[in-house]
This record gives sequence, C-alpha cells and structure tokens, in this order.
Amino acid sequence: MCGIVGLFGHPEAAHMTYLGLHTLQHRGQESAGIVSGHEGQLYGYRQMAKVVDAFSADALAKLPGDRAIGHVRYSTTGQSLLKNAQPFWVEYVDGGIAIAHNGNLVGSKETRRRLEASGSIFQSSMDTECIVHLMAAAPPGALEDRLRVALEQVRGAYSLLLLTEDKMIATRDPHGFRPLVIGEVGGATVFASETCALHLIGAKFVREVEPGEAVIVDKDGVRSVRMGAPAPTPSPCAFEFVYFARPDSRVFGGNVYGTRKALGRILAEEQPTDVDVVIPVPDSGVTAALGYAEALDRPFEMGLIRSHYVGRTFIEPQSAIRNFGVKLKLTPVREVIEGRRVAVVDDSIVRGTTSRKIVSMLRNAGASEVHFRVSSPPTRWPCYYGIDTPTRGELIASSHSVEEIRDHLGADSLAYTTLEGLLRAIGDGDRGISGAPFCHACWSGEYRVRMDESPAP
Amino acid sequence: MCGIVGLFGHPEAAHMTYLGLHTLQHRGQESAGIVSGHEGQLYGYRQMAKVVDAFSADALAKLPGDRAIGHVRYSTTGQSLLKNAQPFWVEYVDGGIAIAHNGNLVGSKETRRRLEASGSIFQSSMDTECIVHLMAAAPPGALEDRLRVALEQVRGAYSLLLLTEDKMIATRDPHGFRPLVIGEVGGATVFASETCALHLIGAKFVREVEPGEAVIVDKDGVRSVRMGAPAPTPSPCAFEFVYFARPDSRVFGGNVYGTRKALGRILAEEQPTDVDVVIPVPDSGVTAALGYAEALDRPFEMGLIRSHYVGRTFIEPQSAIRNFGVKLKLTPVREVIEGRRVAVVDDSIVRGTTSRKIVSMLRNAGASEVHFRVSSPPTRWPCYYGIDTPTRGELIASSHSVEEIRDHLGADSLAYTTLEGLLRAIGDGDRGISGAPFCHACWSGEYRVRMDESPAP
Amino acid sequence: MCGIVGLFGHPEAAHMTYLGLHTLQHRGQESAGIVSGHEGQLYGYRQMAKVVDAFSADALAKLPGDRAIGHVRYSTTGQSLLKNAQPFWVEYVDGGIAIAHNGNLVGSKETRRRLEASGSIFQSSMDTECIVHLMAAAPPGALEDRLRVALEQVRGAYSLLLLTEDKMIATRDPHGFRPLVIGEVGGATVFASETCALHLIGAKFVREVEPGEAVIVDKDGVRSVRMGAPAPTPSPCAFEFVYFARPDSRVFGGNVYGTRKALGRILAEEQPTDVDVVIPVPDSGVTAALGYAEALDRPFEMGLIRSHYVGRTFIEPQSAIRNFGVKLKLTPVREVIEGRRVAVVDDSIVRGTTSRKIVSMLRNAGASEVHFRVSSPPTRWPCYYGIDTPTRGELIASSHSVEEIRDHLGADSLAYTTLEGLLRAIGDGDRGISGAPFCHACWSGEYRVRMDESPAP
Amino acid sequence: MCGIVGLFGHPEAAHMTYLGLHTLQHRGQESAGIVSGHEGQLYGYRQMAKVVDAFSADALAKLPGDRAIGHVRYSTTGQSLLKNAQPFWVEYVDGGIAIAHNGNLVGSKETRRRLEASGSIFQSSMDTECIVHLMAAAPPGALEDRLRVALEQVRGAYSLLLLTEDKMIATRDPHGFRPLVIGEVGGATVFASETCALHLIGAKFVREVEPGEAVIVDKDGVRSVRMGAPAPTPSPCAFEFVYFARPDSRVFGGNVYGTRKALGRILAEEQPTDVDVVIPVPDSGVTAALGYAEALDRPFEMGLIRSHYVGRTFIEPQSAIRNFGVKLKLTPVREVIEGRRVAVVDDSIVRGTTSRKIVSMLRNAGASEVHFRVSSPPTRWPCYYGIDTPTRGELIASSHSVEEIRDHLGADSLAYTTLEGLLRAIGDGDRGISGAPFCHACWSGEYRVRMDESPAP
Repeated sequence: MCGIVGLFGHPEAAHMTYLGLHTLQHRGQESAGIVSGHEGQLYGYRQMAKVVDAFSADALAKLPGDRAIGHVRYSTTGQSLLKNAQPFWVEYVDGGIAIAHNGNLVGSKETRRRLEASGSIFQSSMDTECIVHLMAAAPPGALEDRLRVALEQVRGAYSLLLLTEDKMIATRDPHGFRPLVIGEVGGATVFASETCALHLIGAKFVREVEPGEAVIVDKDGVRSVRMGAPAPTPSPCAFEFVYFARPDSRVFGGNVYGTRKALGRILAEEQPTDVDVVIPVPDSGVTAALGYAEALDRPFEMGLIRSHYVGRTFIEPQSAIRNFGVKLKLTPVREVIEGRRVAVVDDSIVRGTTSRKIVSMLRNAGASEVHFRVSSPPTRWPCYYGIDTPTRGELIASSHSVEEIRDHLGADSLAYTTLEGLLRAIGDGDRGISGAPFCHACWSGEYRVRMDESPAP
Repeated sequence: MCGIVGLFGHPEAAHMTYLGLHTLQHRGQESAGIVSGHEGQLYGYRQMAKVVDAFSADALAKLPGDRAIGHVRYSTTGQSLLKNAQPFWVEYVDGGIAIAHNGNLVGSKETRRRLEASGSIFQSSMDTECIVHLMAAAPPGALEDRLRVALEQVRGAYSLLLLTEDKMIATRDPHGFRPLVIGEVGGATVFASETCALHLIGAKFVREVEPGEAVIVDKDGVRSVRMGAPAPTPSPCAFEFVYFARPDSRVFGGNVYGTRKALGRILAEEQPTDVDVVIPVPDSGVTAALGYAEALDRPFEMGLIRSHYVGRTFIEPQSAIRNFGVKLKLTPVREVIEGRRVAVVDDSIVRGTTSRKIVSMLRNAGASEVHFRVSSPPTRWPCYYGIDTPTRGELIASSHSVEEIRDHLGADSLAYTTLEGLLRAIGDGDRGISGAPFCHACWSGEYRVRMDESPAP
Repeated sequence: MCGIVGLFGHPEAAHMTYLGLHTLQHRGQESAGIVSGHEGQLYGYRQMAKVVDAFSADALAKLPGDRAIGHVRYSTTGQSLLKNAQPFWVEYVDGGIAIAHNGNLVGSKETRRRLEASGSIFQSSMDTECIVHLMAAAPPGALEDRLRVALEQVRGAYSLLLLTEDKMIATRDPHGFRPLVIGEVGGATVFASETCALHLIGAKFVREVEPGEAVIVDKDGVRSVRMGAPAPTPSPCAFEFVYFARPDSRVFGGNVYGTRKALGRILAEEQPTDVDVVIPVPDSGVTAALGYAEALDRPFEMGLIRSHYVGRTFIEPQSAIRNFGVKLKLTPVREVIEGRRVAVVDDSIVRGTTSRKIVSMLRNAGASEVHFRVSSPPTRWPCYYGIDTPTRGELIASSHSVEEIRDHLGADSLAYTTLEGLLRAIGDGDRGISGAPFCHACWSGEYRVRMDESPAP
Repeated sequence: MCGIVGLFGHPEAAHMTYLGLHTLQHRGQESAGIVSGHEGQLYGYRQMAKVVDAFSADALAKLPGDRAIGHVRYSTTGQSLLKNAQPFWVEYVDGGIAIAHNGNLVGSKETRRRLEASGSIFQSSMDTECIVHLMAAAPPGALEDRLRVALEQVRGAYSLLLLTEDKMIATRDPHGFRPLVIGEVGGATVFASETCALHLIGAKFVREVEPGEAVIVDKDGVRSVRMGAPAPTPSPCAFEFVYFARPDSRVFGGNVYGTRKALGRILAEEQPTDVDVVIPVPDSGVTAALGYAEALDRPFEMGLIRSHYVGRTFIEPQSAIRNFGVKLKLTPVREVIEGRRVAVVDDSIVRGTTSRKIVSMLRNAGASEVHFRVSSPPTRWPCYYGIDTPTRGELIASSHSVEEIRDHLGADSLAYTTLEGLLRAIGDGDRGISGAPFCHACWSGEYRVRMDESPAP
C-alpha cells in the first residue's frame, strides 16, 4: 500500500506535500519522496525512511517551486531498495517527468518483457516504470495523450500523480480500486489519497477523482478528461474501510469511523456472545470494538496497551522471552482482564501468528474466557491491486476452517463478520455511500481484473 | 521525570536493561544510557536520543557483564546536554561508580556550593552529581555506608540505582516520592521504576523498595538496610496515577488503569453533564474518559485521532496554518463530533494552550457544545520532586479561576475532579492502596519537604 | 577524469576492486561505486564520497561473488548527483548490466535526443547511459555484438568495463584516448586504468587493452575481439603523463616518473635560468622539479609544504585572511626561500589563480626572485575526451600571451616546456614508448575526433 | 603527542583556533576540541575525529566569544574515549575552567590516588585532570595562584592553556619539554604549539613562552609571572626537530627544515656510502634525505610514493596480500629503484616492522642493494614527557644491536646519526639555537625528571 499527495499553485508546494505525506504515513513507512517543479526544472528527493526521518529543513529547501508530488511506500519484504522509492523520476523526449503510484498493475511482467524486447532499459523493479516507458514510446502528443496510450496498455489498480515541467495530472484506473481526492487551499489544487491529508494543510475537500478520469492542472487551470471507457462497474477496495484508511478520513464517499463502528455492531448482531468486557487490539480494532461493545451493551475497556515507541530496528536478546515481539508492542492491563470473560476485537487475521500470541497473553493475564472477534470476513485470497497481503499459502484462512483457526489461536470462540454484513456496513444508512459494488476479492476470490485478462482494447 | 532500570545476575544484563528502558520511554525521551559491569570494569554508553534510536546492536555488544543499570530522561528546557545524560559515571577512591536517578534534590545548589568550596570539581549541572561527591568525601567504608552519609546531607526526591564493580544498590528517599520496584527473573534481581518494565522481560514482581530502604545486591545475594530514619509519613506522588505511570503498571501498590477509571467516575459524580458523547484527549485522557462515560451512561467515542508518527524535528511551513501544532498530533473525527454536545476529558491542564486549540478544533468539526473535563484538580503549584512542571507563572490555574480558564479555552463548561475526589479514587475500594497520605503539592501547595528546611542532621 | 577497476574469478572480487579503487583515487574523489555479480544476480553500491569514506565492511559484505567492477569519479561542477555516480546499472532485455566508463563521448547530446525520440527514458545525465540504450536497441545477439553495434554509433573517448550476470568486457575506443591495462592475480583477470592498481592487490601486469579491442572474460576464459576498424592513428592522451597518472604507474607503455623527470630536464635545456634553488609545487610538480634541478645542477628543496589533511568541507572564517585558500594547502619554508632566487616548478597553469598566490606567498617568504616554470606547454584548449578542463574562456593561456601571464602571476620570469620538447620527453630514449602520435589537443587545438564529425560508419 | 592553540581578543576566536588546530594536525588526529568564552560563559565541543571531520559550521557557530582554546590529540592505544578528549572542561568553586595540555605528567597516578583518598571524583583517565583537582583544592586566590599551587605538586612535561570566564593562561613546565609560542594578530594574543599555526591565521611570531613562565591575558592586557623556580637547566625535546614539528615551523628558537637537512648532512659525513640513488621514506624522511644526498653528491629521487588517501578505517581483505599495510601507504617507483644501489632515509626506527617491509618492497622493485639510513640515534628508551613511544620491550633498539637490526630489516647496511652529531645539527651554525642542553632521553636514557623524583618543593 502507498500514499500519494500533490499540490499545484502553492508557494510552499513541497512543504505542504511533506505535511500531507505526514498524515498518510499509515499508508507507507518504508520510503518517502517528493519531486517539485520550478521554472522548467524538476527537483527530487527520496529516502528509505519514514517521512519524519526522511526530510530535513535543508532537504525541503532544495525542492523549490509552486508544484510538487509526494509518495510514501509501505514496507514489504524484498525489493526494499532506494531505486524502488517513488516518485519515480526520469528524462524522456518531452523533458523531465515524475510519477507517484498507489496500486499494483496486473500483468506488468509481460509488459516489461515486451518493452525490454524493443530496447527499453529499466532502472527499478517497479511496475510503475512500465507506464513511463509506454508514455515515452507513445506517438508524439500532449502529456495526457501519451498517458492515455500508455494506460490503454496496462490494467490493474492505479491512482497516479504525474508531474512534468509545466503540468500535473491525477488519474485513477477505470475500476477505481484505490482512492484519490481533490482539495483546494488558497487557490492551489491538492490531490491526496485520503481526506485526512487535506485537513492538516487547511484544504477543503472538493470531490473524488472519478474512476477512469484524468484531472489536469496547469497554468490555464484545472480540467478533466477521460482516459478511455470507464469500467462497466467501478469496484473500489472495501478493505480501505476495514483497515487501511485513517478513521478520520472519508474515502469513496463514505466515512471510515462510522463504517468501522457499523462493522462492529453488525458483528455483534451476527455473533453475539456473553462476555464481561470488550477490548480492542489497538489501534486497528478500536473503532469496531466500540461498535461491538455498544451493540452488546457490554463495557468497553482498553485492555491492551500499545507502545508507540517501537522502531523497526529493535534489537532482540538471545534469551528466549515468551511472545517477545508482541510484548514489545502490546501489553495487557491485568486489572481489566483478570477473572473475566473477554471479547477481543481486531480488524482481520492474516497469518494468525500475532492473534495467537494475543490470546496467550490474555490468558496469562488471567482471562477466564477469550473470544476472538474479527470485523471482516476470513481473508482467503491475495490482493493483486495494491495491498501487500501474503501469498495464499500464508493466509491462514485460505487453508483452514474457522474452527481450525480458533483451535490454532487457542481462543474459546472465534467469529468473523460475514461478507453480506460487511457490504451492509459499508453502505449502511445515513453514513453510507452510493451503492458501488465494492471489490471484495480478498474475501470472496472474485477478482475484477483477472490475471489472464488481456488489456483493455 | 525519568525512568530507571537495573539487573544483577543476568547473562544479558545490558540487553534486558535496554528492553526495560524501552517500556519506560514514556518517562523520558531526551536521553538514554546504560552502564554495565564485567570483571571489575564498568562500561558505559549514553546518547541524547530516545531508547530506540540511542542503541545499536554494536552499542549493546560493548556493554558486557551480568549487571547493568539504565536511565531515560525527560525532555526539559535548557541543560539538554550529553554531560547531563545518565547514568552518571565516574572514578573515585573506591573505583568506578555509576548512578541513575529519578527525582529531584531540594537545595542541591547550596550543597554544590559547599562542595566546590572544599575543592570538588563538577562535570555536569545535575543535582545527582552532588550525591557522588558526598559519597567520595564520606569516611572510608562500605558503599552503603558512604551512601548513607551522603544521603543524610541531601533532601528531596530520589529513587536511585548505583552500580560499582561488585555491587548494585537500589534506594528511595524517606518520603518515597518516586516509585521503584523489585522483580526477579531466572535468578536475577531486577529494579525498575514501574512494573511494566518487568512484564516485557518476563520478570515477576516481588515488592516495592520501601521509602528510606536500600536494597543491596552482590555476589552474596540480596539484603536490605535502612538509610536513616524513615519519614514520619511517606508521601508518594499522586500525579504518577493521574498521568505519569503507564496504565498497565502498578505503582505504590495500586493499579493505574483502575485508578484512572475511578478518577473519571468520581468526576462524573461530582460534575455530571448532559452531553451526547464523551471523548478523550488521546492517549492521556482515554482511561478517565472511559470511567466518565460509564458513570454518565453516555457513549464513549474516539473523537480525536492521535498521530503516532510525530517526531520532534517536525519542520513548520511559513504559511500560517490554523492550530498547526495540535493538528499534527490530533485530528477530529467529524462524524463523531458534528451536531453533538461533546464532553472532552483530559488528565490535566498545564498552560491551557493545547486545551484551547482542542476546543477550537472540536467547534470547527461541528460540536454544538464543548464541555471540558479534567480528571485531576487544577494544577497550581510547581513540583520540586522530579516532575518538569513549569514555574507558577506559567501554570494557568495558579493565576486564573476555573471560570476564567473556561473562558480562555472557549468551552461551554469546565470542571475538575476535586482533591478529595482524587484521593478517594487513589485509595478507592478493592483497587485501592494502603492509606498513604500522598504528596499532592502540585494541587494543594502542601510541600512535604520545604525549600528552606535544613538537611536531616 | 575517472578511474575504473574490475576483477573476474577472484573469491574476494568486490574487496579487491575496492582496494584497486583506493589506488586510483587521484583519478576521482567525488563518487565511488562497485557492482558485483553472484549466481546470476548483480549487487551494487554507490556513494557520493571518496573511496575510504564510501565503503564500510558492511557495504562490501553485501557485494558477493567472484566478479566486480568499480568506478571513481572526479569532482566536477554541477551535475554532482548520486544518479550520475557509476557503475551505471540497469535491467534490459538480456538481464542486468552494469557499466563503468572513463572518458567522454563526443556528440552524445544528439545521440540522446535521437534515443529519446524513439521512446527511451533516461535516468541520469551521463553520456554513458547512451551506450546502454544503444545496446538495448541493438539486434538480439551476444553481449559483445550488442556492444559493437552500440559503439559504432558513438565517438569520443571511452575505456569501458561492462558486467552482466555471466560476463565481463573491457574495451577502449579506437583512438585509445584513455588507458586500460590487463593484469592477473591467482588465476583471476584484472582490468584497471593504471598499473598502480595492480601493485596493491599483488597482480602482475599482462598488457594493455588495445585501442578498438574488447577483452571478454567468462567461465570459458579470456578472449579478444575487435570492436570495428581501429583508428588509423591511435592517439593516447599525453596529459596522463604530465599530470593525471600516478608517478609509480606505467601508462600507454611508458613510465610516468621517468617521463616527468625528462619533462623537467628538457624544460631546463629549453629554458635555463640562473637561480639559487629549485622548488616544486607539491605534489604535482615534484618529479619535474627534480629533473629541472638536476639538469641545471642547482639545489632541489621542498620549499613549499603541502598539508594532507585538507577536506573539502573546510569552513572559512569571515575575517579576511590573505591567500587563505592556498595557505590551507601550501606553506612556504622561510629558511629555504629567504634571500634566494627561486625557480618554482608546476605541471601546468589552468586559470592562474593558484599560481599567482604561490608567487605572492614566495615573495612574502623573502624570495629575491621568483621564476615560474611549467613542465608542459600553455593549456589553451578544452579537452572533450575526459579531462575536466574549464571552457576556453577560463583557460588563461587561451587569451593571454606568456608575457601577460607572467605579469599576472607577478613572477620575474615564466617559461613552459614546448610541445616539441614534451613529445620528445614522452618518447624519450630507453624510458620511451613506441612512437604513438599522442593526443595533444589541449595545447595544440588539434582534435582527433571533431565535434561535427559524424559517427564512425 | 598533542597540539594546542588559543586566542584572546579576536572576534572569531573559535574559528581561528579551529584553523590553528588544522595546521597542528600532525601533532594529533585522534580527537579535537575547542572551548570558547563569551559573556561569563564557557562553550565547548569535542569529538573523536580529525579536525576537518570534527567541526562543522554549526559546531563553530555554537562557540561564541572573543577567546578560545583548542586541542588535538594523537592516536594512542587504549583509553581512546571521548571523555579523554580535550580541552578538559569542568565547574569548580570559581566557576568554569577549561584546560588543554601537551605533554605528560610523571607520577600522576600517585597524585590521583592521593586526591581520590581525600574525596575527589574523576571523570577521565587523563593526568591533566589532576591539575584541575589540585587547583580546586588550592587555597582561595587568583587563578594564577591556584595554578602555581597545583603545579608545585606535579612534575613532568606540560605546555598548558587554561581558559576561565575572564582569563587565559599559557604556561610551560620548568624544563620546557614541549614547545609553546606567543603570536599576535590584529591586537589579539595567540598561543600555539608551533609557529606554523601562526602563519595560516596571519599572526606574527612574538616569542616563546619561557620554561616555568605563565603568560596571563585578560581585559587588562598581557602579563608574565613565574610559576616557581625555573629548572637549573631547561631541556626541550630534541625529537621535535627530528620528527614531530612541521618542517615549516620554528621550535625552541630553531628552524626545523634546516635542522633536518643538517641531520642528513651529518649522517652522510658520519656514514658515507657508495650508492646510485638516495630516496626518502615520505613524508618523514624527505628533508633529511635531501641533506644526505646533497652531502654525498648523489641523485635524490622520490622512489617511494605515499598515498594521501589512507583513512583509519581501511577494510582489510581476507586474502593474504604481501606487505598489505605498507603497500596501502607506500609504493615504489620501479624506474627509480630497479638495478640500483639505493640509500633509503627515514627519521627513526621504532619497532622495525615498517622499515623491514620497506626494504622488502625495494628489493622486490629490483634494488641491487638497500642501505637504510636513520637521521637520529637508535631509539632505546621510552618517553615519559609526551611522546607516545612504545614500552622498552617494543623498541627494537633497546634489545638489539645495530647489526641485529640490520639483519632483521634485511638491509645491506644500516646506519644512524650519532647523538653527538644530532646535537651538533640542532645547534648547527647560523641555523642553530642557543646552546640549550636538549632532552635526549629516548636515545641516551638520561631522564631529566626521574620517575621516583619527589615533586618540586
């Protein structure tokens, strides 16, 4: 997962982009970068670090101009190299071009092979680089025309920001898998993955970039063009509501906090349990746990404390410490747990490793019963559209029944929200969003863009 | 405020100390240090940085031995120099000695002047250094005897860990202002400011170090000696319950989470209000807000989201951004706030600056009413015993009435827990602790050790 | 100017490359990099730093395999960016490829424009990148065939090392502008810009790579192929003898130390002067000054001391200090200078700024006369083949007569070695080299590859 | 060995001190530090690094004021810790005091033991710290009076600079073992170990600080006081001329370059040899080799090239490389050596390890004979007065005859300058210095301050 931000027409464009990236840090902490434009020149800076560590006042001072795009990237295994940090920035026939990408292209390896066969050389292992090569190989024309030609040859998920010496373009794939919103502050146009980025810099929300739309900003103002036929049915990612987006953001026209509470409430309706206390796995399970406790009318307590000082370079001792990794991050509040029947709520279970340690930790803290509750359905299928889920083999729910998982966790009971319930929560009542048929492939296996599908004509 | 940890008899003493410091990071993020002992030699390492940043695997590898003490220091204004980082470590007549100190000595400037007049030279501006000078000047004798002579000449708050080439001593001042507990893991003795440090390293809680007691550990085992007459009435710091200690810790025999909930409940009883929703200022106000909502039977929501990525070197833009500093750290969830009567709960108000911005932020997010609730009495007096409160002039409650503060915050109402209520909460029922008359000078001005008091004879 | 080294078949290939780069540091201190190959993978590391600062044991440990190429780059104005550090390393249709280049292509901007027009995207501003694009666009074939096609489309100066997953190629342009030698150590093949790199790693000199030759090393051994017709007259760079190469190296079949002494001797014959003492500008003028003093039979003294601790980040005071920059680097030995007629010998005069300060410094130290002697002809023309000489406008000799330069320096006399004398010195007697007509464009303006010349057919 | 500099009354005092330290870097590259004074406050900065690496513009900017002292320390084995870097800076009864010391106290361990017994605590393992403790323990009085009391209790070698909030003092021990000169620039007073430090900052030489003299500078000007009875015979260190001081410096009233040439000439007279060429071990042997070649009337050549890029963190390969360490630093010029009888001149032989490798390297480069010449007598005794010579056991000449050393080196002959010749060279003719009986203990074993001698009364 990644986060992107861009501003056009702001005297401190790079600085505002930096602030925007700061609010999107939950979408990516592995690398951070900004490319700005000033008087026909692009200026770039990228680091393998979190936003707060990546940028100094000096670094920002070297990113002049009234336009900039920025990118944060999630930590993934392997390929964690500076050359894969974004914005990706090169020279081609029309001059400098920088690109920031949230999402994943499907079938990009073939595209890459095809490009290499015709003489392209690649500097990164990112699928994003294909888009720029396809633009460079397109017939001469305006930036948006080259972009259209390039996007007709790729498929998958992409919310993109492009910056050249005189223009910025924001676009989303025809399915609209990943979010991208437009804001406005003091006459400047802002693009961002989530609305929370608008808030910090004082920008007001204007609207979403539509699936298949490209919004172009240059000295003549803002205009919108189509990037090809829209997908018959847009399918934004439902998992943004469950986990990714920040609770104070709006995505895909819906609010995240309300949706998460609804997920908890529906889970309680579908799977009521008689417990003494409801606790979340912080921070991801907090909102759903509030809804769950409310619907069950049971006390909500912060029974697990999360340490916010954990760095990625923590040095492990040689002595065996039981559940060391989880203990570093989470600690139980014995007074809340001891002698009680506890429902512990999280947003999802991936491999099951951490959940199992949490159950064990709660039992050690004296819980008489531990009921694990998950505010989404079992995650059975990998995501090809931008979320770094593991392969099927690693997803515990792809090969184990709910009962088997419960047994593995050592919990007294285990229950998930149903897919039907989840879709109801997202579209729920007054907080809901217009009836988009969300992408729910990670739970259902129904992929909107198949791996073997040929590119859009 | 500071945090201290020590282990004696553990094969990875420095590493365990490092883990312990990690859990105490809420007590000090300005500097971190460890001194270990191995075969008659001390080895030290100190940095002006948070624990996670301060230590590398290399740095830990250079701290050999089965004994170590560690220290984290809170960020204070001025004097933020490496020479003031702890453990403080020097050579004196009996060899090397290292000391880690939580608390503040009263009248240490006079003591220092007296020592300098008789030829002592000082390397730091820390009051802690006086203790070592006094020990060096004491008549020849065992470490504990030199320590007793030194401590008879100082007063104030100190929980101390001392390490020499063959011995570790843990001691608390006669009033027991600051906490210090004893634990045990695999035959090794552990000392730590809070029990949460024991949990991570798998140690079990044994007991507190008593006020005026010194616990000595060496190759012959663990023994206890008195450091002089105990204070007639020990007076542990009540503010540890309100704010400092981690909610999953026990301090002074009481549990922190339970006490904070009780503070919220009592506040609700003392100051009921008709609101639609109760929200905390995260993370400090969460537990009290839970108690407050519970007692009022009103919904508890996480209406403010805290960013956990804020570093101290954040680079401010030149553009004016309204409430920039607070926005970086806290953002409102509009869906929770809009059109509602909101009670917002925090643990204390110091200068009032942040609280005022929070009220303004909630109004901007659409709150119809904002009721500010504080789970402790108005903070009117500075602390001389180890908490970095500002001077009286900066404490808004020392010069303003509650109504004036409410007006300054722009809140519809403002209410504090009473001192009587606070003391009741700390000693409350089954969660309570033996009736110690806590130090509550920061609220009442009743100082247990006066500035002009002469040292114990 | 740059330096390159490569090894194939050595168990510590990257480490040996690092040592080789160390000896070539006089050829480039701005950036340093190594790419190694292991089990079908390339591993790279580049830094904007001198070799000694650029590499740590950790960095070397991450460059596994029995083959590696390395590069050091000279500090130039502008374009001093990490993306321009070498080896340049990308993916193309046949896999990974890394390239290290000493020299400069002529007309590379056109080539680049042509490549961009057909869809290539560029990541650097280096001419070297063109070669890889041309290889990628060449018809399918062996590495050496792709390389031949690419090199037929470029002209100028290039000594190149290429590394792919299974092969290393070393090649020189048809004119042989820049040096490149072959060595052998313990069965491994070594390539290096100068023989001094062989010495440190214990390798023995085998021969030079010939102009227009490509030497290919892979698992089947070493073989040689032609890269196209050789230039009718190879023209190695004479300035390597005057300044660039290390005095303990052999380049182009000649020895550098002997040639420099001969330059000094011929200068003395051509321009004898009656002086009391001969001193060099250290280190560049030392060898020629020895020859000059010997031929004149006058005492040689180290009358200027060079500080070897000058870093590039020296912080200047605000107070005016006369000749500050030169004083940092050079100081006179008053006892040698005072009251004497001094001949000071340097290898060349570029802008004249430093030489002028040296004359002033010698007069301040009491010299009764200062005679400036230069062991090469006046530098009047810029180099397009790899030496970072300034533009014509900045070369003092391109717009000033010798008498005008003497006047500018404030010297009592000024004399240069003649071009005829220089060519005699290079080819001199038993130390000489086979009668190659060296490139002497920087002195004569006779360029062997013209800017407007079309590429070799 | 160490170097010290101080300025009083200069608007950029710290910056000038930094420049001065830069020129003294040959006297110490392990640590560098400066303490400045401004408006009654001292400001300090110390690093374990060379001057060029230790200071940034930021660091200098934090050292305000018109007075400063600085120190560079030589790399020694062990005890290489930041706490031992200088200037040493503490608080005592009269306020802040900083001290920079070149030299070594004799018997400082006893003094330390005595001080500790009376209650002093030590933060470093430097003998210098004793002086400050003794000053702190002295009867109340002016800084110079406290200093006199302290110095009466120590013996050995010390050239000292002290800085307090209002005063600077420069003093030398009664024997005047180590140099210290006074200069003047624009009304400011400068102190420095060698005159070369004056040159860079444009200061003119005034005179030496006399043995046993203290020069005091404050707002009332400069004045001189005695620090006790002078030693009956001052005995400055002769090794400063042989090796330590820079050739462009004057020390103890004599010039270093001229003395070194005289050492070479006298060596040639005492030990003439029939060789084809004379080469120095650069840089230490260059000047003496010039004198040696001149006296023998044989060609002088730079037959060994020294690499100036060697850092201290060089990473060694696992492969055995013959004479690796020496090769990194020195390489032979085969053309100069091959087939010739070579005299190689160095200033001294300590352990013999490097000299042996040089002989082997010259033979490998084809020398027909290698004659090793040393421009000082055999170093047989350790120095207790500030030079980091090894213990007697490690000094090859303390346990081996000249013939045995020759055999160990593998040289055809080996010869040293005699002590008589050395003393003649130092006092030689017009370049000479007033007949001070220099300290020559490292060659003769005649120590001027005995280890068991009691302190001056």
